[in-house]
Amino acid sequence: MAIQYAKRMERIKASEIRELLKLTTRPEIISFAGGLPAPELFPVEEMKKVTFKVLEDEGRQALQYSTTEGYLPLREKIAARMAKFGIQATAEDILITSGSQQGLDFSGKIFLNPGDVVICESPSYLGAINAFKAYECEFVEVPTDDHGMIMEELEKILEKTPQARMIYVIPDFQNPTGRTWPVERRKRLVELANKYDLPIIEDNPYGELRFEGEIPPSIKSFDTEGRVVYLGTFSKTFCPGLRIGWVAASHEILNKYILVKQGADLQSSSISQRELDAYLNMYDLDVHVEKIKDIYRKRRDLMINTMKETFPPEAKFTYPEGGLFTWVELPAHINARELMVKALEKNVAFVPGGSFFPNGGRENTFRLNYSNMPEDKIVEGIKRLGEVLREELQK
Amino acid sequence: MAIQYAKRMERIKASEIRELLKLTTRPEIISFAGGLPAPELFPVEEMKKVTFKVLEDEGRQALQYSTTEGYLPLREKIAARMAKFGIQATAEDILITSGSQQGLDFSGKIFLNPGDVVICESPSYLGAINAFKAYECEFVEVPTDDHGMIMEELEKILEKTPQARMIYVIPDFQNPTGRTWPVERRKRLVELANKYDLPIIEDNPYGELRFEGEIPPSIKSFDTEGRVVYLGTFSKTFCPGLRIGWVAASHEILNKYILVKQGADLQSSSISQRELDAYLNMYDLDVHVEKIKDIYRKRRDLMINTMKETFPPEAKFTYPEGGLFTWVELPAHINARELMVKALEKNVAFVPGGSFFPNGGRENTFRLNYSNMPEDKIVEGIKRLGEVLREELQK
Repeated sequence: MAIQYAKRMERIKASEIRELLKLTTRPEIISFAGGLPAPELFPVEEMKKVTFKVLEDEGRQALQYSTTEGYLPLREKIAARMAKFGIQATAEDILITSGSQQGLDFSGKIFLNPGDVVICESPSYLGAINAFKAYECEFVEVPTDDHGMIMEELEKILEKTPQARMIYVIPDFQNPTGRTWPVERRKRLVELANKYDLPIIEDNPYGELRFEGEIPPSIKSFDTEGRVVYLGTFSKTFCPGLRIGWVAASHEILNKYILVKQGADLQSSSISQRELDAYLNMYDLDVHVEKIKDIYRKRRDLMINTMKETFPPEAKFTYPEGGLFTWVELPAHINARELMVKALEKNVAFVPGGSFFPNGGRENTFRLNYSNMPEDKIVEGIKRLGEVLREELQK
Repeated sequence: MAIQYAKRMERIKASEIRELLKLTTRPEIISFAGGLPAPELFPVEEMKKVTFKVLEDEGRQALQYSTTEGYLPLREKIAARMAKFGIQATAEDILITSGSQQGLDFSGKIFLNPGDVVICESPSYLGAINAFKAYECEFVEVPTDDHGMIMEELEKILEKTPQARMIYVIPDFQNPTGRTWPVERRKRLVELANKYDLPIIEDNPYGELRFEGEIPPSIKSFDTEGRVVYLGTFSKTFCPGLRIGWVAASHEILNKYILVKQGADLQSSSISQRELDAYLNMYDLDVHVEKIKDIYRKRRDLMINTMKETFPPEAKFTYPEGGLFTWVELPAHINARELMVKALEKNVAFVPGGSFFPNGGRENTFRLNYSNMPEDKIVEGIKRLGEVLREELQK
């Protein structure tokens, strides 16, 4: 048998990283590899009450097909919640998706022809890179510093990249670096997108998890021409198992997402949407988010402080003001994939950074997650990692 | 602003039918238009118990991220249930999807380049046609009779269609016609697919809802070379609001679906999967399916008998042995879209058949659904429709 697959399947490959990460689920491993929220914070008891109420009051509707756009009361609440990012929206601006990953896939489907260029941060989110690759695009990575994408570099790239069709960014506590863009860069990005007539995909899964300071206005809040597509999710502020995210966009663009959603899976889970809506009626999600932030802030502090104490000075790392990740850069000759093997021998795991660069290279980097490990394991794991690093660097 | 969309978006358009169907949700309408299961049969009380148990016993896992392939115990149970279609499968052969619609979208993504040809029944399922169109394919429709796709016609088409890349069929109680293929055609389809080295997508959302006779072996059961992709769903046997379907395929092909799922939405809802699994542990789904069949059989009988009594003899219709739909063919000069407007004036709705023909034409057909209306409304609605038909045909 020699069944022919579509050409795009050449781009969709099992990642070596995913195979490595399978090793990290062994119970003895202290894993900083995944991007999982802390399950001990999930509102399990509240979910029991909420689900009972939904099934009691509206069980048949919750188990039936519903509209592609999503459950209207939930879309209204999401629209209202976006005010904290400086966005004025109504339910009409919102499509419910199955996690924000689905919004990424749809963005590729809507905007990308084979050979088109996605402009992104260097590094960028692996899940987005993989979703876009399915549409046979190329990537041009824009250099970044501690404050995210460098606008002067972006401008130079846009000038010489007529094949650019979409700008993809994660301006708040970026995955993988944990970095946040200042307001000026956000405004400037919209100006440049206006000039080059490009859509911006603003991916903001972590923005509410800010441990200190004020939430900056989103890029979408500076959108004067309806070209910014905002992707949100409840996976990090509530729980990922429900698979509820959303797309907020101008009506013209949102209509494309709705049509694509219809063909892709008709609609997101009716019951999950109503459960979340009932939770938002019966409880205060902001109070819950404060609890998450308190725990993650403590874990971030422990991780960063232990890194300062035990990592050799050649290892540079970011200081995330929120979110789930910090990012480590090593001297150029160190390969983090090889380092990972040595760390696993000490039962510690992380994600080597190379995969976050869509055009490869930069194997001297890795990502650390602090949300999913208890405090004592963070200290112990980082100490062991410090040993591995010192051994490598002193060779 | 003149943002450029991908070329494929020219194929993804809002359907006129969907706009018409929005009218059918008015409460005074007797609607045979949708394809909804009967919500009065949803196991709401059982879902309360099941959800409580899942949240009590494994709440944190149910709300967390889980594997792309799906929840292993559920995949095991699905594999075992497929024996009733003559399929020997294990969990390793199963990927959980967000409804079988997602399996359709993935099939297009995996097998279709622009310009490739999908071979399908004439007519075929609208949701599949729309999902495949996003991959810029063409369709060649194979003529059908009361026993589904005509194999001699298929063979002629395959001989002269080297661009064919995929055969898509719904052999059990087809949507929209309600027709079922005999065993010989199923075997022959596999032989022809072997000869022309094509994958077969066998879509079987209704197969368990057989009101009389034995379930025939599936096309997949005759698959000698691992080229049949079987799409299943719990939307019609349990409830659609959970969005749980599956793909069963050979390992080589299934691996492609898993990679595509990863990029599309990471995974289906963790909690929905565990709820369904707990239901299958605590209750007997086959007993529940018998209840559904008893009600739908009664509704089918009432609809068909009332059609026999009130439809003019020029209106021909199918006799479905299961599933949700019957299909009406009128004399060639009658346009069912215009008929729909007249039916709506009498507060009755159906779906005009033209959209089920991917290359257009055959506007003298329509689809009737009997699963979603109570008995008295079926009789009243069909009587009114009979009036409309007689008025039209006696002009």
